[in-house]
Parts: sequence; C-alpha cells; structure tokens
Amino acid sequence: MASTIEMKKLSSKNIVSPKGFTAAGVHCGIKHKKKDLAILVSDVPASVAGVFTTNAVQAAPLKVTKEVVYETKKMQAMIVNSGNANACTGKQGLADAYEMQRLAALKLGISENLVGVASTGVIGEIMKMEPIQTGMEKLIPDSKLENGIDFSQAILTTDTVMKNTTYSTIIDGKEVIVSGTAKGSGMIEPNMATMLGFITTDANIESDELQKALSNVTDCTFNSITVDGDTSTNDTVVVMANGLAGNEPLSPAHPDWENFYTALRLVSEDLAKSIARDGEGATKLIEVEVDGAISDEEARKIAKTVVGSPLVKTAVFGCDANWGRIIAAVGYSGAVVDPDKITIKIGGATMVENGEPIKFSEEVLIEILKQHEVKIYVSLEVGEGHGFAWGCDLTYDYVQINASYRS
Amino acid sequence: MASTIEMKKLSSKNIVSPKGFTAAGVHCGIKHKKKDLAILVSDVPASVAGVFTTNAVQAAPLKVTKEVVYETKKMQAMIVNSGNANACTGKQGLADAYEMQRLAALKLGISENLVGVASTGVIGEIMKMEPIQTGMEKLIPDSKLENGIDFSQAILTTDTVMKNTTYSTIIDGKEVIVSGTAKGSGMIEPNMATMLGFITTDANIESDELQKALSNVTDCTFNSITVDGDTSTNDTVVVMANGLAGNEPLSPAHPDWENFYTALRLVSEDLAKSIARDGEGATKLIEVEVDGAISDEEARKIAKTVVGSPLVKTAVFGCDANWGRIIAAVGYSGAVVDPDKITIKIGGATMVENGEPIKFSEEVLIEILKQHEVKIYVSLEVGEGHGFAWGCDLTYDYVQINASYRS
Repeated sequence: MASTIEMKKLSSKNIVSPKGFTAAGVHCGIKHKKKDLAILVSDVPASVAGVFTTNAVQAAPLKVTKEVVYETKKMQAMIVNSGNANACTGKQGLADAYEMQRLAALKLGISENLVGVASTGVIGEIMKMEPIQTGMEKLIPDSKLENGIDFSQAILTTDTVMKNTTYSTIIDGKEVIVSGTAKGSGMIEPNMATMLGFITTDANIESDELQKALSNVTDCTFNSITVDGDTSTNDTVVVMANGLAGNEPLSPAHPDWENFYTALRLVSEDLAKSIARDGEGATKLIEVEVDGAISDEEARKIAKTVVGSPLVKTAVFGCDANWGRIIAAVGYSGAVVDPDKITIKIGGATMVENGEPIKFSEEVLIEILKQHEVKIYVSLEVGEGHGFAWGCDLTYDYVQINASYRS
Repeated sequence: MASTIEMKKLSSKNIVSPKGFTAAGVHCGIKHKKKDLAILVSDVPASVAGVFTTNAVQAAPLKVTKEVVYETKKMQAMIVNSGNANACTGKQGLADAYEMQRLAALKLGISENLVGVASTGVIGEIMKMEPIQTGMEKLIPDSKLENGIDFSQAILTTDTVMKNTTYSTIIDGKEVIVSGTAKGSGMIEPNMATMLGFITTDANIESDELQKALSNVTDCTFNSITVDGDTSTNDTVVVMANGLAGNEPLSPAHPDWENFYTALRLVSEDLAKSIARDGEGATKLIEVEVDGAISDEEARKIAKTVVGSPLVKTAVFGCDANWGRIIAAVGYSGAVVDPDKITIKIGGATMVENGEPIKFSEEVLIEILKQHEVKIYVSLEVGEGHGFAWGCDLTYDYVQINASYRS
C-alpha cells in the first residue's frame, strides 16, 4: 500500500475523455439564451454510485435518479437541465421527471431504468416540457472534447465559470481516466448543495465498491464546502464507471486500489474547491485547516463552521485580519475545544497562540488577505483530528445576485 | 390563573423607571466620539438572574458577571463598556475585567462581588484601562430619564437605534415596573449573541425564581432571533430585581405571577425583535411563525432556520417571493416534516398548500415584501408544536459594515 501513487492531471481533457463516453449540451428554451439541456452517455451500461442531498424536501428528479442508482444499479445516461430545479412541483413535477427519463431513453434506444435525471435552477415552478421535447432532438452525443464542454456549460446556473477536472492513473498496467464536471454556486453547504456533479471513468469496478468509495470521498470533499449554509433540494453527485479500460475489477484488495481512489478523491476535491471558489459573488477561495481536534469529523465540523461564518467571510472580503471572529466561530462550532490552547494562523502569520493574541503586522496581513486564496489554520491541541473545509468570501455581489434571482 | 393580565406599556419610561434604579453613560475614549462607558445601579442589592453565551470561547467579563449571578446571587451594579469586547485577551483580559469591577465598586462604595461587568466591541484587543479609570469619575448615576437614555446609548456598537422598552403591571395591588435595554446588532444568533441586555424591575422576587423565569423567557425571545448565525463570545442578559415595589415575594404560586412573567416576557420579546429589526444593514424585520411541528422546540428550530437562511434573507431584501428557498430551509432544518403537508404563506398570501405551489399575484407579493415587517407562516401538520423566530434581511450594507469593522 505504501507504493507510489501514479497520477497525472490532464488539463485539456474532460468527461468524454474516459473510453466510451459521449455528451452534448444545447439551448432548448428553459433559459433565455444560455445552454440549458445536456446529456451524458456511456456506450455500455456502467456501474453507478450516487450521493444526494440530505434535505427532507427533495426535488422530483432525485427520486428518479435514486431508483437508477439503488435499484437498477447500472446507469447508461444522465439527462440534465438547468434553469428550473423541478423542486416542490408536486405530482406534476414527478411526472415531468419521469417524462424526461422516458424521452432520453427513447432517443438513445435504451431502457428507461438506465437513465438518470438531474435539474437545477428555480424552485417551485412547473417544468416547461415542450422545450425539453424539442431540445432532446437537438442533442447529438459525441466524444469530441467540445461536446464535453457543451455539457459542462449547459448545467450551469449562476456559475461564472465551467468546472472540469481530469486525472489519469495506471491500473493493471492500463491507463484509467477519471473525469468530473460540476455546477455550483449558491445554496452550497456541507451535506450537498445546489450542486450537481458528474464523474465519468472507464475503470472496471462494481457499483457497490464504487458507492463505498464515493461516500468516503464525499465527506472530505463535496461535504466540506459551504457558500451560504443553505442545503438545496437538488444536490446530486453521480459517478458512472463503464469498465472499458479493461482492468481487473477494483476493490480495496486490488493492488492498484489507491491509484483509483486517489484519482476519484482528487477529481472530487478539485470540483468541490472550484465550486467554493466560484461561490455566488465570491472573489476569494477560503481554505480552513484544523489540526488537533478530538476527531477528523470534529476537525471538519470546526473548519466548516469557520468557513461558513458570515462575519469571517465579510472580514476576508474586506481584507480585515479579524481573527476574533475566527476564534468565536471555533467556539460556537459545538466541537470540544480548550480556549487556552487555540492557535490561529492566517496565511503563515500567527494571530493567536495558546489563546493569547500575538502582535502582527497589519500591512503583512492585508497583503495575505488580498490574495485569491486565503488559508486559515486552526490548531486545537486536544486530540489528533485533522480536516479541511473550503468556502468563499461574502460580498456585495452575493446580495445582488440573490436579491433578484427569479427576476 | 385565567384572570385577565394587567399590563401597560410605558413608552416614555426606561431602565431607571423602576423604583430605586439609577444610571449614567459617558464617552471615556475607547471609541472615537460616541459614548462608550455606562453604569447601572440599584439603591439596594438586588436579586439577580443571568443568561450567557453558549460559545465555548467566552469573554473575560462573563466570568466576573457569572460569579456575581451564581455565587453572590445578588447584584447592585453593572459596569459596561462598548468599543472593546475584552474577549480572547488571555490573563490580562481577565485582570482588566476584575479591575473594572473593582473601580466601579470603589466608586459606589459597595462590595466588589455585587458588581457585574459587560463589554462589547472588537474581539482580541487588550482593553485600554486608562480611559476606563478616568471615565469612571465622569459617571454620575441618577434616576433622571435622560440618564437611562445615556446608558442605553453608551452600550451600542454598530446599532443604529437605542433599544428600550418598559411595562408596568400590578402585583398585590402595587405598581411594578419592568424595563429593559439592549444592544445588537451583528453576530446575533439563537443561543445568545453579541448582544447585551439589561432588565431592571422593582419587583420583589428571589434570585432562584427570577433565574427560572428568565431562562424560560429567553428560549422564545432572545434565543429566537438571528442576524447572521454567528454566536458571540460576550452575550449576556442580566435582570436585577430590587424589591422596592414592596410586593409579597413572587413565585409561580403567587396569584399575580402571570402579570410579572408576562411583563418580563414582553420586555424580552420587544428587545429581541428590536435587535433583529436593527440587524446590521437590515431594512426589514422578518417574523417566521411555524405551526404543526412535532414540538414547540422543533417549531422554533424550523422558524430559526428559515429566518437565518441567507437566501431567504436576500430574497426578502430584493422583494422576491422566492418561497422555494423557504421550503428548502424547512427541509434542511433537521426537523420532522412531511413535504406533502407543508403550507407556506407570505403576508396573508398562500404560496404553497400541502406541498403544491399555488398561483399568486407577483404584484401583491411585491407590495407585501416592500413593508418594513414581513411575516412568513409555515404550517407542517405533523404535530401541535408552535413557535416564532425573528430576523432581518441581508443587504449590501451588512457586507459593507462587516468588511471593514475594525478599521
């Protein structure tokens, strides 16, 4: 297990790069102008894993996709729209989600129970199905890189940039690619967000093993980001693994398991961080690292609390080294802490050591806080727990975007 | 118990209006110009009750005040400063808080263990004690109404208005007055906030009974407001009851108990709502009422989650009837809900009934949302629990205020 991990980041590749995947994205008319309908297809039915919002109110498409993940346990395609979340739309909404599934299956000539559905956008409006029907005809899945890009663009809402990442690794001497794309960007909070994530890989792995790996990875990636503390009704991350790389089936017992797991983790972490960085109105990525908590879980909880504090977020926006707000957030996180052992650093600069304020240079701190990435480090010295969380600053633009989202 | 409750709101009175209370507030030099040092005094040692922040990191003055409340169990004066929270200031901070107690006791010629201390302002800066020493001499406690106003002004930080409220009731045929003053206004969250509250009454009641009453009242008043989800290190509400009204000692067995309890509750609710209304940058008070939860506690939890959602808060700021964000917040509150039974109203207008969206007039809703008070009603139909929470909209000004608080 201690062998080196084989890993390459492929910056020009995307979700169609693993063998046997095609995609398309078009404008169908749910949004005014931008692309709003997308399809992702595997040549063959793929192993599948999914994680979904913990919100008690779940959008209709989640019911459909969960059936594919948990009952069919294979997936061959995802049909995705942006502009309308198809959430809180009652019986009509559920009928519409099934209709999207049916239309995509019909188009591809595959079984309906192999097609997942995802929607993102405004909550509480009945889907317009006519644009979906006509748009479906315009979707021409292909393995060209530009088709992967079309897909990534068509799933966005208030995102300002596409989110893509791809790694290649070696399993049984063969190249295996893991690639992902995601959308944010408000309503982002631990335990999934108004976030859609789609990961493709040509690795050969059973659905059950894939699900275990995805669930583990999610805790320290997608569930460790927050934009505004709102957990959405639509959050979904789906992985399709179609096995076309031809490796022996993967499990933790496989000698190259760490290669695969690391690729999946890096794809998830890259997507999670890019979602946080592109939080609504954000100008900066904030990374909080916590060390010495009583458990990794508590470390992540504290990190999330700090990175989610509106007062910390506005201070970072304003380049104000207001570490008092950081220590206050540590204190109200609910985790076990000893106020006299807390050490806090911003960038490399120590602000507090063992609970006592340390004199620091405001000028140096302003320079640190002006960067596009701000790292906050908290040491607790009450245990061995370690964890990260990522978020973004709170800005005028966040208010502006969200005060008028529907209009 | 079912008799009518005697209650008058006295809009021109304040914390010096109950018999035997005096106060003063001056500028001592912690802040640039505004008043920043205040004292509240009872002619005789008073029964006392207090509630304090649940933050694991607590400011030095809280230790001092808790000793008075829990050990002395009598209080005769509170010394309060604004501009510096004396939080995260280590051993020096604690020494400074005790020094403030000592100086106030010396000035008044009373025992040190009868003097509570409260501080509010920036976290993590060592107190300047010289202004406190010289300011102490300028404090001339008096029962004139303007002295009560001076006190209320001197405890403010980013508050835009003073917060005062006074009720009179009848106990044993005698007039009893309960009056309170508070400061907000950011870092306000259930379980106390960067909030100071001081309540005076001339009622005769033992400290233990007073503590029980205050704790009960706090759950559905001070702990039911949120501005930004940040729980501060300094939150304190203290009640002094000096007994000078001359009534028989109060307890729930007293025939006029409800009169006293209601006065205490109304004072607390008025202060809590005025803090929410004056949240940093706020333009509107948001009241959320939840009905039909499985318990009153769960109802309050849901109400707080909705009123604390940044997406709900920005939508209210933008007069956007985005009820989808309300139902999403209900869903992620962690409370027991049945999505198909949720009904949501904004103002009087029904947006969702039994989980299904209802057509509504955007024009009517914009008018409702333009008001200075916006009421959101959520019905769950899963139990009998009922509760309220109060908050405010999230605005450009919140970001502006908090991006540059220390500067």
